[in-house]
Amino acid sequence: MIRFESDYTEGAHPNIINKLVETNFEQTPGYGVDVYCESARAKIKAACNRPDADVHFLVGGTQANLTVIASILRPYQGVISAFTGHINVHETGSVEATGHKVITTGNDDGKITAQQVADIYEGHWNDGTHEHIVQPGMVYISHPTENGTMYTKDELTALYEVCKKYELPLFIDGARLGYALMSPASDMTLEDVANNCDVFYIGGTKVGALFGEAVVILKDSLKKDFRYNIKQRGAMLAKGRLLGIQFDVLFEDNLYFEISKHAATLAMDIKKAFEEKGIGFRYDSDSNQQFPILTKEQYETLTKKYSVSYGGELPDGKVYVRFCTSWATKAEDVKALIEDIRAL
Amino acid sequence: MIRFESDYTEGAHPNIINKLVETNFEQTPGYGVDVYCESARAKIKAACNRPDADVHFLVGGTQANLTVIASILRPYQGVISAFTGHINVHETGSVEATGHKVITTGNDDGKITAQQVADIYEGHWNDGTHEHIVQPGMVYISHPTENGTMYTKDELTALYEVCKKYELPLFIDGARLGYALMSPASDMTLEDVANNCDVFYIGGTKVGALFGEAVVILKDSLKKDFRYNIKQRGAMLAKGRLLGIQFDVLFEDNLYFEISKHAATLAMDIKKAFEEKGIGFRYDSDSNQQFPILTKEQYETLTKKYSVSYGGELPDGKVYVRFCTSWATKAEDVKALIEDIRAL
Amino acid sequence: MIRFESDYTEGAHPNIINKLVETNFEQTPGYGVDVYCESARAKIKAACNRPDADVHFLVGGTQANLTVIASILRPYQGVISAFTGHINVHETGSVEATGHKVITTGNDDGKITAQQVADIYEGHWNDGTHEHIVQPGMVYISHPTENGTMYTKDELTALYEVCKKYELPLFIDGARLGYALMSPASDMTLEDVANNCDVFYIGGTKVGALFGEAVVILKDSLKKDFRYNIKQRGAMLAKGRLLGIQFDVLFEDNLYFEISKHAATLAMDIKKAFEEKGIGFRYDSDSNQQFPILTKEQYETLTKKYSVSYGGELPDGKVYVRFCTSWATKAEDVKALIEDIRAL
Amino acid sequence: MIRFESDYTEGAHPNIINKLVETNFEQTPGYGVDVYCESARAKIKAACNRPDADVHFLVGGTQANLTVIASILRPYQGVISAFTGHINVHETGSVEATGHKVITTGNDDGKITAQQVADIYEGHWNDGTHEHIVQPGMVYISHPTENGTMYTKDELTALYEVCKKYELPLFIDGARLGYALMSPASDMTLEDVANNCDVFYIGGTKVGALFGEAVVILKDSLKKDFRYNIKQRGAMLAKGRLLGIQFDVLFEDNLYFEISKHAATLAMDIKKAFEEKGIGFRYDSDSNQQFPILTKEQYETLTKKYSVSYGGELPDGKVYVRFCTSWATKAEDVKALIEDIRAL
Repeated sequence: MIRFESDYTEGAHPNIINKLVETNFEQTPGYGVDVYCESARAKIKAACNRPDADVHFLVGGTQANLTVIASILRPYQGVISAFTGHINVHETGSVEATGHKVITTGNDDGKITAQQVADIYEGHWNDGTHEHIVQPGMVYISHPTENGTMYTKDELTALYEVCKKYELPLFIDGARLGYALMSPASDMTLEDVANNCDVFYIGGTKVGALFGEAVVILKDSLKKDFRYNIKQRGAMLAKGRLLGIQFDVLFEDNLYFEISKHAATLAMDIKKAFEEKGIGFRYDSDSNQQFPILTKEQYETLTKKYSVSYGGELPDGKVYVRFCTSWATKAEDVKALIEDIRAL
Repeated sequence: MIRFESDYTEGAHPNIINKLVETNFEQTPGYGVDVYCESARAKIKAACNRPDADVHFLVGGTQANLTVIASILRPYQGVISAFTGHINVHETGSVEATGHKVITTGNDDGKITAQQVADIYEGHWNDGTHEHIVQPGMVYISHPTENGTMYTKDELTALYEVCKKYELPLFIDGARLGYALMSPASDMTLEDVANNCDVFYIGGTKVGALFGEAVVILKDSLKKDFRYNIKQRGAMLAKGRLLGIQFDVLFEDNLYFEISKHAATLAMDIKKAFEEKGIGFRYDSDSNQQFPILTKEQYETLTKKYSVSYGGELPDGKVYVRFCTSWATKAEDVKALIEDIRAL
Repeated sequence: MIRFESDYTEGAHPNIINKLVETNFEQTPGYGVDVYCESARAKIKAACNRPDADVHFLVGGTQANLTVIASILRPYQGVISAFTGHINVHETGSVEATGHKVITTGNDDGKITAQQVADIYEGHWNDGTHEHIVQPGMVYISHPTENGTMYTKDELTALYEVCKKYELPLFIDGARLGYALMSPASDMTLEDVANNCDVFYIGGTKVGALFGEAVVILKDSLKKDFRYNIKQRGAMLAKGRLLGIQFDVLFEDNLYFEISKHAATLAMDIKKAFEEKGIGFRYDSDSNQQFPILTKEQYETLTKKYSVSYGGELPDGKVYVRFCTSWATKAEDVKALIEDIRAL
Repeated sequence: MIRFESDYTEGAHPNIINKLVETNFEQTPGYGVDVYCESARAKIKAACNRPDADVHFLVGGTQANLTVIASILRPYQGVISAFTGHINVHETGSVEATGHKVITTGNDDGKITAQQVADIYEGHWNDGTHEHIVQPGMVYISHPTENGTMYTKDELTALYEVCKKYELPLFIDGARLGYALMSPASDMTLEDVANNCDVFYIGGTKVGALFGEAVVILKDSLKKDFRYNIKQRGAMLAKGRLLGIQFDVLFEDNLYFEISKHAATLAMDIKKAFEEKGIGFRYDSDSNQQFPILTKEQYETLTKKYSVSYGGELPDGKVYVRFCTSWATKAEDVKALIEDIRAL
């Protein structure tokens, strides 16, 4: 079975593994104040061109989301999210478990617009009974989204303008950030992302690391005491240097971007193969997740050899599935898949 | 200004006031273990024909909702509610503040069907990644709903059957319960309600009392330690006898039902007046809340004399509003209103 | 049985009852924005000589405590309290239920000193691993304390100085505030209290009202959006005018202070009777709660006729109990009690 | 600088590193349902001789503690812990953040006795106002404790008997479990631990792994839906096989026990050296943490070459510190330390 079901099926990039082996018996202090974390922080700040940023390393995405969101909101505030947002549908209510409602909006593509945020905000404050209603307190988006779609620079800029106008911190879940930035369809750089939000994270788990998400806090008022939040949520790794080492390697010589490009390129090859076969897509994605719509026969044929994520059945009886590429995807596996798509 | 904006604009039924005056200097123990609470409990159990029930008195509706719901759910579970459910839209995220997601479904009328609950349950457990998703743990409905609509006995029975099948406790928010039960369109008694759910409350705040909601717990496994929950949520009134006295009076000589009938009758009169005028309704309500759709001119004319709750603007430029009757509504005020409707 | 067990055994002062009767059929808007609430707010601000204060009316003490505390703390912060503080021992973990630790300190008398707060603060920040430890975020005291003791003006001023120095908001639980202020041993006025804390509440439940606590917010940064907190915690009374009416009456013509003085005077009479009998006290209280230490024979004799709160057994086999006076305590009952004390 | 400050200063045992390297490019499903996790689970169940156990792998100790505790307690319940318990003092209120009070008891040695648990339970239920007080809902202990001390088999058996009697689940934090089990002073095996509690975890982070704690659930009623809790708390590792691989290696050929013995032996050597020098200890530990009491001169001398954890200053002006050994401690470093102790 060749696995295209997710982008976390393998371990880590060999450079990371090598560095972990090499440093294994070094002694460092715990909890993220070691030299490797320091070095990784410096590199990330440089890559974002934001020397003023605070950078913290957490272990996983759900953890990063709940820790960041709970650190920002007042008790009576909620977080605006696309209804398809990961925090709304695939984190077992972790945001609610910290006491906050997820206020949903959005579109079929998984994105939310500046106008939608404005509507929620204005709707709330124009309602005479607003204190009976959860107050919108921040905005959460994923880039790329859970549907593989991406914000354009114009879209993100417009969204951030609205957020600033209404004093709603904008948080970007970048679990797959590299796969958006290095998509051929992308018109944004890491620097653009950093300059158009208040806090975001750079996903490592799905992009070359064993695990780890680098939370980058840009807005000063959100920086205070963040390490308390990390610790309280069980997100402070004792051997913190493991996170530092991984991000230090990922941000050495553009590795993060190069391995992201590898995945993005292979995803486009798969997309093209489906398109050439006349197979449509549930979502129009230009990043590492592709959602073709298959007949049940096509589905059965392909899943004999390839594992995919099942998406659901459509009204016409067809099903849609998810194929993921990643930093670890082998070109030969994609080649085999393309041939099998052509043979459908 | 004559107020039809809500059903909590006056104090309490004179019988209650008289009893409060009469008992004012009696000394009783606190926290709901006095003779008045005991008497009220006995009367409510008799009225429900459920001697096995536990009855607790809380101060208000949001408090009752959050206390009951948080007492039932496991941390990773959510409560199924109509998207228009009070807990979802008008309680400032109080359920989320106890750690739980509100899982929404429902229809424009404010009700949810047995099939919708089945779909959510089956959908959850048939999803291979169910532990990544909030588990449905109970069902919340309002009767009458926030839109004034009511469940029929068949609908409620079907809903409860599904809830029992899936072991989802069914909780009925009865903030306005009397106004449903005594609607001419109702085919249910208090006993029917008690026999078709696991826990519900009988609203006093909106039906004759100064304040107070009587929570009736029918399912044995939900009874344990409920007083701890009441106290922890700040819902245990020191002078608990105030609640006992009020419900003792309300359930003496059918007072609760008679004053409810008064409100329901007047509401039907108002409904008829709008209908005769050819004015439609946003929701088809047979209980004490009526939601006529008015032109802006009609709205301005009526609100010069009557206060109402503003509902919202519709695509055609008309607006809908809420008129409430209550135990305290004066027949003469309704008469005046009807004349003014006719004169529109 | 004559009840001295608590200060919430009766209803409300007749002036309040009369006003409730008189206003019963008036129509007012809900949720605390009516004319009675406005009037009561104005009187309380005047009584505190703090026109800049925000005043909110909540139903009960546990509710007021959890709502205020949860509105102030950041998620990783805790509230410093005496280990005997009501929030620490008699509110079923309601503060923890909002996510916060109660950080305990204090003395046998139930008070905490400026030095103790300084020690906690300095100890926290001088600890290299401070982010692994709950950060002290505010200070909670009761005046009078649960043990009947009172802060002197010097003690409170010193405590508030330390709080301001460390930016720890100081919150005073005044469930029995009147009984401290009107104690013959008091050297503080209401104005002194208001000028030496950031937020406090004036207890009505135990001092003349059916129920109700007036939260007075003095520090500007704590005022924002407080009504959202009230609503979310289930503490916003629909018929809010009931609270307004009660406090409006209590702050008319010094009623609150006069009825408090009544209770304080009777408590001193009881204290003196025990002293003259050579009976000691568990706590040295000059307010409305008295904690005599009785032999088991004395205890049995007195409790045949009077209900008291049982405190506990001491190492020497004696027990201590609590006698409470209140605004409603009858002089004749105290006279009878004193005679029975003399006859022990 | 030679680091004795903690037992998490290095990476992982070479066998683990080798296995991670060897398996790096294998493809496995995520979230802990891979073959490595299955294999590790089987080995741990065998090592405990408890085929009925459920085993889950989490990343860190605070995470394991908060996830287990929040999965067990009802909202109004608290967890009994020694006042020195890690959850009470070094986890930033993570248990409170899930809504629960830590009910403290215990002794200077960091242990709690069966009698102390019985006293809390009986004290709670004998108090007439028990619903005003947090209900004890479970017991948390650490073995070895944060002070290095260990429960004897008799002590643990007695504690568990009381817990079963009162239906209080007993949870053992085994972050350093190996270092207790392999202490020369230990009279317990892993099987004894498993048979004398309801849930415990086997620490990997401090005993040979890069990270990871194996939660072993023995009581059937605590097993249900545990994976939901893991996910909700952000504790479900995407590349779950990393945890499986590590515990699979640790429980291959007794590795976990052998490396634990290594640390325990070296710790005893250090203890003996201090004893021979006439230097006393803050706590009488026979496990891998040693707490000698040093003069300030001794402290300064040793910390020029060795990093230790500073414990605090004692009334006589001396200070106590913590020396930790671990699976990674080099015999030569201990030898050097012993020589330096002798030379003090």
